[in-house]
This record gives sequence, C-alpha cells and structure tokens, in this order.
Amino acid sequence: MSTLKTEIRPGAYFDSIVLMQLQAALAGLEGIEDAGVVMATASNLAVLEANGLLPEEFSGEAEDLVVAVRGSTEAAAEAALGEVDHLLARRSGEEGDEDYRPRSLEQAARQLPEARWVVISIPGRYAARVSRKALESGRNVFLYSDNVSLEEELELKEAARRKGLLVLGPDCGTAHLGGAGFAFANRVQRGKIGLVAASGTGLQSIACRVHELGEGISQAIGTGGRDLSATVGGITAHQAIDLLGRDPQTQVIVLISKPPSPDVCSSLLAAARGTTKPVVVYFLGQTPPNRQLGDLVFATGLEEAAEIAVRRLAETLDPSTAELVVRSPQQDRRWLRALFSGGTLAQEAALGLRFFLAPLASNLGVEGTIPGSDPARSEGHTILDLGADEYTVGRLHPMIDPDLRLRRLRQEASDPEVAALLLDVVLGDGAHPDPAEHLAPVIAEICQQSEIEVLILVVGTDADPQGIGEQCSRFEEAGAQVFRRLSDAVSYAALRLGRQREASPGPPVALADLASPPTVINIGLESFHDSFQAQGATSLQMDWRPPAGGDDRLLGILDKLNRNGRQRD
Amino acid sequence: MSTLKTEIRPGAYFDSIVLMQLQAALAGLEGIEDAGVVMATASNLAVLEANGLLPEEFSGEAEDLVVAVRGSTEAAAEAALGEVDHLLARRSGEEGDEDYRPRSLEQAARQLPEARWVVISIPGRYAARVSRKALESGRNVFLYSDNVSLEEELELKEAARRKGLLVLGPDCGTAHLGGAGFAFANRVQRGKIGLVAASGTGLQSIACRVHELGEGISQAIGTGGRDLSATVGGITAHQAIDLLGRDPQTQVIVLISKPPSPDVCSSLLAAARGTTKPVVVYFLGQTPPNRQLGDLVFATGLEEAAEIAVRRLAETLDPSTAELVVRSPQQDRRWLRALFSGGTLAQEAALGLRFFLAPLASNLGVEGTIPGSDPARSEGHTILDLGADEYTVGRLHPMIDPDLRLRRLRQEASDPEVAALLLDVVLGDGAHPDPAEHLAPVIAEICQQSEIEVLILVVGTDADPQGIGEQCSRFEEAGAQVFRRLSDAVSYAALRLGRQREASPGPPVALADLASPPTVINIGLESFHDSFQAQGATSLQMDWRPPAGGDDRLLGILDKLNRNGRQRD
Repeated sequence: MSTLKTEIRPGAYFDSIVLMQLQAALAGLEGIEDAGVVMATASNLAVLEANGLLPEEFSGEAEDLVVAVRGSTEAAAEAALGEVDHLLARRSGEEGDEDYRPRSLEQAARQLPEARWVVISIPGRYAARVSRKALESGRNVFLYSDNVSLEEELELKEAARRKGLLVLGPDCGTAHLGGAGFAFANRVQRGKIGLVAASGTGLQSIACRVHELGEGISQAIGTGGRDLSATVGGITAHQAIDLLGRDPQTQVIVLISKPPSPDVCSSLLAAARGTTKPVVVYFLGQTPPNRQLGDLVFATGLEEAAEIAVRRLAETLDPSTAELVVRSPQQDRRWLRALFSGGTLAQEAALGLRFFLAPLASNLGVEGTIPGSDPARSEGHTILDLGADEYTVGRLHPMIDPDLRLRRLRQEASDPEVAALLLDVVLGDGAHPDPAEHLAPVIAEICQQSEIEVLILVVGTDADPQGIGEQCSRFEEAGAQVFRRLSDAVSYAALRLGRQREASPGPPVALADLASPPTVINIGLESFHDSFQAQGATSLQMDWRPPAGGDDRLLGILDKLNRNGRQRD
Repeated sequence: MSTLKTEIRPGAYFDSIVLMQLQAALAGLEGIEDAGVVMATASNLAVLEANGLLPEEFSGEAEDLVVAVRGSTEAAAEAALGEVDHLLARRSGEEGDEDYRPRSLEQAARQLPEARWVVISIPGRYAARVSRKALESGRNVFLYSDNVSLEEELELKEAARRKGLLVLGPDCGTAHLGGAGFAFANRVQRGKIGLVAASGTGLQSIACRVHELGEGISQAIGTGGRDLSATVGGITAHQAIDLLGRDPQTQVIVLISKPPSPDVCSSLLAAARGTTKPVVVYFLGQTPPNRQLGDLVFATGLEEAAEIAVRRLAETLDPSTAELVVRSPQQDRRWLRALFSGGTLAQEAALGLRFFLAPLASNLGVEGTIPGSDPARSEGHTILDLGADEYTVGRLHPMIDPDLRLRRLRQEASDPEVAALLLDVVLGDGAHPDPAEHLAPVIAEICQQSEIEVLILVVGTDADPQGIGEQCSRFEEAGAQVFRRLSDAVSYAALRLGRQREASPGPPVALADLASPPTVINIGLESFHDSFQAQGATSLQMDWRPPAGGDDRLLGILDKLNRNGRQRD
C-alpha cells in the first residue's frame, strides 16, 4: 500500500525552475510513485488532490511551499523527503559553476551600460519592485511575470510614460524587438508588419502566419493583457502605436486585443488612424459590421488578421472612404443622436459605433454601450430604438406614426451640444405612405437654424410604393445627407464624430530603443537568457535573489523606507 | 399664457390608429398648441412631460388612456376636450361606410375558408387569446403585436408545433410568404434566397440588398425577436429552417438573429447543416473566427450577409471542409476537453466552438461559455487555459513545464465520456525545447487504450529551434491529428462533436401554406389589409373588438371559463 508524505516550507522563495527540477528528481527516486512540489495556492492544491498528493488534513497558506511524495512504502516516502535539502543544494552547486553574475541591477547596468531593456520573469510579488528600479535606471521593461496587481501595473506604466519608456506587461509573454524574440517567440523573418498585442499567443499566431505567407515582422510589441482595461487606459498600446507610426520599417500595423474598454477603444482607434498607416484591428470576438473605416480594417480571426495585413502591404487606401472625411465638427457640437424606428438597424449601428464613439448610450443592451440615465433626455452619444416595446404600448410603430420621432427630433435639435442626427426611414408596404411628408419639413428647419448635420438612412427598393428616388430627393432638398447602406452611414458618423488623436502626455519613446540586435539585462528565467544568446542578441543574466530572503514582513519595511527616500528626492 | 387640460379614460380599449387620428385632430383645433393621446405607460408619460403635456399631479395607471391638450386659453383647451367624444364618434361613423365585416374569427373563417394565415396586430394583451383561436382553427399565425408575454409565446408556439403550424412573432414586423409582404415589407423580386429572421429590419435590409443585387427572395420568415431565447428554444426558427430546407424554390438560406442562447444556437446550426443547403448565418455582434464550416458561412453585417448569399447561389460546397467530416463519435463518448497553454488560442477556440458545442465550460469568461463548477474536474465540453494566472503561482508556464498539462491530460483521458482532446503546442524560443518528448508518449498511450481522438494544434515556423516538421511527425506517429491553423482545429472539432440534427417533435409544416398568392384573415391594423390587397393577395379584414368591452376583470373570467372548457375536451 502506498504512503503519502508531505512537508511544508513556509514563506520561503524558490526559483520555479528549481521547483520543477526538484519535483522531477523526487519522482525519479526509487520507490516513489508520484511527487508534487508547488506553492500552496487553491488551484495547485486542487491538482495535488486530483493526483492523490494532498493529505486529508492540510493547513498551508498560499505562500507556503508544499513538497508531497507518494511512495510504495513509508520508508521510501520518508527517504525521499530526506533528500529534499540535498537535491536543492545540488541545484545550487551547479549554478556555482557559472561565470560571475551581477547580484543587483546597479551592478548589471555597470557591466552592460548600453542595455536598453530589462527582462523580468521573477515571481509576481517581487516583480513591480525590480521594474521600478529598471525604469529609474532609464531602461525599458519587458515584464513577463504575472500575478502583479493592477495598481502596480498602472503605477509602473505612468512612471514609464513620464520618462518616454515602455513597460511591456505584466504577464507579457512575447515580443519581437530589434529582430530578436523576447520570452516566448517564434523565429520569423524581419519585414514590414508591426504588431501591437495585448495577447501573447495571438501575437505569436499572427507572426507565424505572416512568416508563412512570405512576409515579415518589423517589431512586435506585447502590452500585457490588461493594458486596454479602463484602469490602465491603454498606456503601453498608445506608446506602441505611436512608436510604430514613426518606425520607418513598419508599413502596416496590426493591433490585437480582447475587446478594450469603450473609452480606451475609441482613443486607441483615433491614435491608429492618426498614424496614417494601414492598421488591421482584431478585437477577439468583436467585429464592427462596417469592417473598413478609412485606413482601419477589422479582422474576425487571428489568421485572417495576418492575411489582411499581408494583403494591405500591396494596397493603397480606398479613396472612397477617405473622401468621407468632410470637416471636423465644431468643438461644442460633439454628439450624435440616432433615432431609429428599426430595432435591428439601431443595434447594428450600435455594434459599429461603439468602437468609435464614447460614451455611447442606448436602450439596446448592446455590450459597450450604457443605458441612458433618463429615457426622455439624451446625454453624450445616444442611439435609441423608438420601436422598442416600451414605446409602443397603445401607440403605432414609428414606421407608421411619426409623432414620437418628430417630437424627439426637435428636442435633440435644441441641444446645443448635438453635432449630428441619424434617422432611418424604412419604406415598403405597411410603412408610412409618405415618410418625407412629416420628416422633411422638420429636417429643413433644423438644417436652416443650426449647424447640425442630419443623416438619413433609407431602406427600401426601387419597387416600393413610396418611390425611393423621390423620398431621397426630398430629404436631400431639406438638407439631409442620404445613405442607402447602414454601413456607409455608420462609417460616416464614426469618421465625423469619432475621437481625434490626442497628444501623448509623455515624451516619445526613442526609436533607437528598437535598434537591432537588442541589448538586454535578464532577471529571472535563465532559458530566456539562453534564447537571447542563441538569437545573437546581447544578454546579461543577473543572479537575482529575493530581498530580505523572501520574508514578506521585512520586505514591506524595506519598501516603505525606499518610498520615503524617493519622496524626499 | 397657455393652459394644460387632461382627461383620463380608465381601462378602455381604443384602436391605436384611432388614437393617432384623435391626437392629430385635437392638435388641429383652433387655439390648441399641442395635444397628446397615449396610454399612460412610463415611457409615454415621459414623452408627455418632455412636451409640456403632463400635469404636475398625475395618477393614471398604465392601462389608462390620457388625453392632454395645451390651449392658448383655458376656454380653447376646455373646448378641445369637449370634442373628444365627437371626434371618436366621427371615426366610428367612417368605418360604418365599409362593407360588412366579420366580427369573429369563426365568421371570418366561414367567409374565407381557404385562408392559411391569420395576421394579428391588436394590442398585446388581447393578442394571445386571438392567436390561440387561430391555431385551433388550423391556421398559421403572423403575430405583429408586441407586449405579449414570454410564457404566452412559448404556449402558442408549442401548440402550433403540435399541429404542424407556424406562429411568426409576437413582435414579428415582417415576412414574405407566397410572394406577398406581410406587415412591414419591401417590394422585392421573387428568387432563390430564403430568410429566417428573429430580426425585422434585419430581414428587410437583407431582402432589399438581395433585390438590389439582382436576385430575389423565395420566402422570408420572421420568428419574433425572442424565438431564439432559452425559454422559447427556437421553435419557430427550427420549423422555418426545416420548411425552407424542403422548399424547392429555396437554394440558399440566410439565418439572422441577435446571438441565440448557446443551447438553441448549437441545435439550430445542426438543423441548418442538416438541410444540406448553403446557409448564411448572421448573429448580430458575434462572428466565429472560423467563418466557414461546411455549408455554413458566418457574416459580420447585414449587407455582407446578403452579398454572401447571392455569391453562394453560384458556388458549390467547398470540398475541403466537407471531407473533414470523418465519422460520428460513439454516443457515450461525446465531450471535447481542450487544454491550452496559450490564453488567446484558448479564447479564440471558445469564440468559435461556443456556436456548436453546448454546454461549453471554460475558465476564460467568454460569453456563451459557463465557468466549470470544479476547476479540478471537467464536465461537458470544456476549454481550459492552463496558462491563466491562477495556475502559474510558483510554477513555470505550461509552455515550459509540461507537468500540469500531462496530469490533466491523463485525467481527462480516463473519463469514459470524452470523445476528443485538443492541445496547443507553441514552439519557438523560450518554449520547451522538445514538447513532443513528454507529450507524444502520453498521446500514444491514450490513442492505443481508448477511442479518444487527440487533436494537436502546432503553432510555429519552419525556422523555430524545435524543428516543426519533426515535432508534427512525432505527434502524428503517436496517433494525434495535427493542425497548423486554429481555425482548422476548431472546424474539425465543431464538425466532429457538434450537435447532430434532431427530429422535429411535431409534424412538418405544409409547403402548401407558402403557396402564392397567400390568403389571409387580417385582425387589427387596416393598413396591412390594404397592403395585402395592393399586392394581389387575398385578405379579409375582421372587425375586431376587445372581448368584454376591454374590461380586464371580466376578460380574466372569460379566459378561465374557456380554458376549463378546453381542458375537458
């Protein structure tokens, strides 16, 4: 009968490679059936339990190291646990054979002063500390470590931005900088396509596909998965887009992320348009129905994003959409108010406009839009479906009865912040026999008395009883712009009213930091150091040990002292 | 100074056209600035308020009619209110000029026994009652009315299905049946494209675009916007797809809806595939990254859906995806278990598979997937990102350390309900130097000892240090199927493990019910009756009045008596 023996080592720091090797060594000992060496987090304990490696009574904390062995006999299990210190020492002994390695960032920087990048892959709870030091030394940070808090991420990125430096990460798995792959990276040709990615294996998949298609990567900048959240505000993505916009090697930019928060999305797309380079956007799971907007094209999948990027290298901008940009709205007139009679039309408009207009309110429940605070009064950009159930109790649908929409139209037009009104007019049997009869006079009044643009989407066919040509003419004569396709109306509104590119609040990141090959100080996983060397990059491995021997209480005191010191500077 | 006068008429029924005309007539009286005639719902009261038509103290109920007039003098306002009964009577008098009209469905059915459709546009609270009677008389129902409860919708649709009849709606705004447009419908050519739409203006937009492209519509079946909800289960959409699958005129089917509930989605797509006709699917705001799956193509916008449908008329099925269907999994082996090291790869797989596999669990927070109840044990179809933060505390990423994934792989393989395992292997610098070393033996063991299929997605380039060709060969030798693109792996898994078409629980709807031109009994909006006649369809207008004079209490008693009567049958 097999026996389980476990040992808990509270709060001590161990390199995760050391733990992996210790587990393998224990499992390889005679009489040992299985072994587990993990930090005692809930997920890790669940894995131990599933593998029969968790004792019934267990009381470790998440910061504790658990060593568990299941032996064929009690003696074998006991003997294995007795080997732990010896096995750990053997690993340390091997390290002793290496060349002299700097023990601090200061030492490393003296040894390799030209290093522009510090690559950090130590455990999350120490990573922000070391990143802070790297930024203070004037270097960019590639932060592989995960389990770094959102607050620390924001603090680090704001500090970096003030200095014109980048923090890629935390939890940044990959990048191609100056021709070398950072952390997990495929070997790909260098070329003209630049990537900005809040998505590690997304970046890798696209880079592989670009390579397979015979093209190459100029730079690929990972931002960490939370960079485009409302809290972090896309600081790194903004810097990266600006950088690739200035990079002469980059001819097409690909931006990959989970759907960003709406505010970050609209400002980032404005920045992307501001580069005047073609930008392929892939927000996993969210594609606007109008897939091309000026120089932006939206992809629906990783492989498609790569394929579009390669195709775009050979294409020039579609002049038809470029011409759509007429003039900027007056600054105090900013908002779009869209009053739809068709629910699906309203929804599709919201699905497109949510990428460009923020804040965007609607009564549609569409992700990325907010419910308006007062259904009787609009704020910011607003899309309303006036045919929704709540408006049609005891009342004819707005496709037949124009009263509700005419009232709301006048109300919106009296708002001095409104820049444009968007209406749909659905023709055909069953609908109002002459929509222009009531709408055109009100539109004419609005266009004469204000700077408001009125956009009308007419849905119908040349066989519809209302006479589509005549209806369109009457709206145009009243001063409206008439569209026959929703995607055109949405693109127009997005280009007219979408955010403009804003100046960066920090100095630009130096293009020289992307020089080839990169020079790197590597702190943490030695396999990354080996990869840099194998790729011909210059890398210096630092022999990092946790401060205060990994003691959390002591570490807290040290941090406090350091911070106070900095504040006095 | 203007004066506001209001009158409340509790609980009485008025035709919404009568109310629209009353409001217009009141507003046209001398000395009247504005008038409002609405049911006192919250939305309507907000509109009255915004237009200065709501008194400060107002105590009406949602079922009450409010008549509000703002006169330039008190006398004018008083006089206008005094006209209300007279104006209402004038309207009734006009109706009196018409031919004799049946007052009950029984009378109407005797007058037009060949009618296969009853079109209902009376107020929502009476609509289910009349629909029930129409179904009992063996006729299909086009239910324009909104504000019908979800419970009533389900009850009606289940009753219809038992009889091989359709209920289109509630809140169904449009259809093209037998060459005629129902309710709101554009005049379009007849042709080979059939539509199924839980989306009114979506159906209209696509029909218009198809017409503009020179093609036409065979039949277009609206289902009502809630048909694809978990409660209703897509009853009408299933019947409609089956019907268009059998309709010889229909060569391509387009399915449009807001994103359906996951269970409805997978069963509906199975039914769509079962038609063996090309089906273009547009779920507003949700496009799977693998946009083509056998005969299914997913669109990203209304206009694109129409364009793809027209293109598909000329195309034949892509044989490469057809060949992917190898064999059906054994019935007791049903589930996919996907263990990813790449977070974005996991997410993109979930974004694709959620349409076909249900229930689908994941630790990704992707809409349409559910969180697993136990992170250490899988249930149903499951996609796990093993590189997520919770798994990497004090542990190397699974791209470097295979231990966690190997353990989970063995665990999943021991589940007798598992049909397939999907793994990603990401090559390149930084990753494990030889992933096949640990994975291939376990895969070989699984393939030898069970019927489980192992699918491996290899991400990498021909320049990666691991040697992509050799890695792939070793996985294939072990018995795995190797994919180089995520979309191929996802398509394969969807085709292999996706739901199969299920037999309908009711008799088929008769193709004869789509005969041209349609014959219709119209109950409610007279403009629909006029449209039918203008289009050459046969329509009989019923003179419907609310039962019990619109008295809710009395109506409840009548319903109860009726139900008891039916139960005795």
